[in-house]
Order: sequence, then C-alpha cells, then structure tokens
Amino acid sequence: MTFEGIEGVGKSTQVALAAEWLRGRGLDVLTTREPGGTRLAEELRRLLLDCDHEHIAGTTELLLLFAARASHVAERIVPALERGQWVLCDRFTDATRAYQGGGRGLPAALIEQLAAIAHPGLSPDLTVLLDAPPELALARARIRSSHPDRFEQEDLGFFARVRAEYLAIAAREPRRLRTVDATAGVEAVTRAVAAVLGALLAASGR
Amino acid sequence: MTFEGIEGVGKSTQVALAAEWLRGRGLDVLTTREPGGTRLAEELRRLLLDCDHEHIAGTTELLLLFAARASHVAERIVPALERGQWVLCDRFTDATRAYQGGGRGLPAALIEQLAAIAHPGLSPDLTVLLDAPPELALARARIRSSHPDRFEQEDLGFFARVRAEYLAIAAREPRRLRTVDATAGVEAVTRAVAAVLGALLAASGR
Repeated sequence: MTFEGIEGVGKSTQVALAAEWLRGRGLDVLTTREPGGTRLAEELRRLLLDCDHEHIAGTTELLLLFAARASHVAERIVPALERGQWVLCDRFTDATRAYQGGGRGLPAALIEQLAAIAHPGLSPDLTVLLDAPPELALARARIRSSHPDRFEQEDLGFFARVRAEYLAIAAREPRRLRTVDATAGVEAVTRAVAAVLGALLAASGR
Repeated sequence: MTFEGIEGVGKSTQVALAAEWLRGRGLDVLTTREPGGTRLAEELRRLLLDCDHEHIAGTTELLLLFAARASHVAERIVPALERGQWVLCDRFTDATRAYQGGGRGLPAALIEQLAAIAHPGLSPDLTVLLDAPPELALARARIRSSHPDRFEQEDLGFFARVRAEYLAIAAREPRRLRTVDATAGVEAVTRAVAAVLGALLAASGR
C-alpha cells in the first residue's frame, strides 16, 4: 500500500496512523519510505535531496531514483511481502510519474520502461493520494523545514504540475488510487483514510 | 576514446601516456574515468566499490552505474566533445557489458536498453582493450591495492568471464575495439597503443 501526494499533505503522519490502525486489527505491518528504505537507498536519498547537487540532469535523477527503488524492492519490500507482512510505503513509482514526469516533463514511456526494470510485476494494491493545492501544502511543508531540500526549492508551478499528474493517475486508475482531501484537519483526513482501509479489509475478507 | 580491461592490465597508466602522446601532437585532450568523472558520479563510485554494500542486487548495481554514466556524459563528456576536445575515458559501457553482463550474467538486452537511456547516440570512436589473463592481471592489481574493493574481491572465475566478454565484444566490433596484449612490459604496451593512436590520427587526416 502506498501513500502519495506533494510536500506538506501529511503523508508520513497518515502512514504512521494507518499502520497503527491496521496493527490494531491484528495485522503485521512494515512502514517504509522512498527514496530510501535500505542503507544504500538512504545514501542515494541524501544525494538526491542535497542542494549541493543542483544540476542533476533529468535522466540521471530518474536512474538514481530507480536504483534506490530497485534496492528497496529487492532487499526490503519483497522479503516483507514474502513473510506475509503488509507494507505501507511513503511514496513509490507514482511519485516518479508525478515529479519527474509531470513536474520535470520527462517522458512517461521512459519512466514505465525503468519501472519494469526496477520492479517487474510489482505494483501497489492500494494507493492513498492525499490531495491539496500546492499553495496550502507547501506553506505547511515550509513551516516544518527551515532548510528546504532540492525538491522543496521548486516553485509553485512545478508543484501544480506534480499535483495535476497525481490527479491524472487517480483518474486513470480509480480502483487502485483513492483520493483523500488533505485540506481538512488531521482527524478528518485520518477518518477518511480509515474508511479506505476498512473497505480494503472488507474486500479482502478480513 | 575508451580504455578497457580487467583490474591490473594498466589502463590508468596507458590513459595518461596516450593523453601525453596526443597532446604532444597538438591535440586538446580530456582524461576521465568511470564510474566517476563528476562529483555526483564519484560519490556513486564510492557506494559501488564500498565493501560495506556487499549485497547490492544486480539490477540495482546496473541502475547505479548508468546513473553515474548519465551524469558523466551530460556534465563532462558531451560538453568536452562540443568544445572540440578529445575525450579519453578509463572504462565506459563496454565495462558494464563485460562485468555486469559477462561477470554477473545480467541480460545483454537490459544493458543495451539502459545504455540507450543514459547516452543515446553516443559511443566511443575507438576502444583500446588491454588484454591479459586474470591470474596475471589480478596479481598486479593486488600488489597495488592492500584493501581490495567490492569488484577486486571477486574470484578468478568472475574475471575469466569478464575477460571472455571483452574479447567477444572485440570480435563483434573489430573496427571500434583494438586488442593490445597487456602481458608485455609497459614500454611494449605503450608502443602498441601509440601505433593504434597513430593509425586513428592518420585515418582522421591529422
């Protein structure tokens, strides 16, 4: 299960609350995040977010993101799934579609080609898209972070394109993606996410 | 122009001598190496060679290598070629074909797919393949390095497969690759490389 959305929509909070909610129902849950999730991938995350590397070319950024993802999938996600755990991940390939595809304008076909290399046959069963206008979400993200990273430094136009791409993916795959209005308070968002999780559990017969 | 071969065949020495030889003929030469060549790619080199990351999956290693290469091509090689410089590179995509394809057994089609993403349309005009049996070359490499890196720790069978793949590429592309016997002394190897360079200069009308 993945949680997606632009900076400041409350993904990490909702991942933690959803894990708690599922554990309360007796499920074995692993929470993780991207880019990251393995020692190597966390080092790549540091390189990707570091503002000293301002001039990373689009193709290089894409290859680095998928290198981190391949490591995360092979060493952390697949072993957890094989142990029967539920995996909740803060961002996955939809983030690449939205940020590098929508935001930076890299070709969708190139992204899908690399996704097929990095995680052949693996796709989230459910994706919670936390949606909010960039103006609102970025204001929250900037309160939190006094040193904006390489992505947080992008302008509103960039995040508007990222959000539009997220919504386009949700429109194309309404079964997999569930869009939750993230402009409401934390409790209302948490209730909306719990409703999505409840429906999934019911559908899977738990 | 690229220089290829397994550990200990004398690539870095021959790159430096070839650069000197070409500069002596009035050419503007840039020497560089892979993985590396940009600040980001040198950080990736460190991660790739670091023995602490012993369990890098094959696909992850491949994506990381091509991320480093995409950075190197976009930020260093293409700008140098556009300035009219001759670029001499210690290893390039043939090394990936030999090490990850031959050595690790990753599919050739996957490597070519990533090469087409990382450096579309770019291929060396000439590749000097320094060839020696792994027994001999590795003994030299081990005298040099008291702390063998993640690749140098591989066994003789691995390097035998790498060498065989290099020779297979040379057999397929005899115009681009020139195989030089690296078991001879440095001076004999240097003369053989100079003969290859001389023929290239003559063919290019210099």
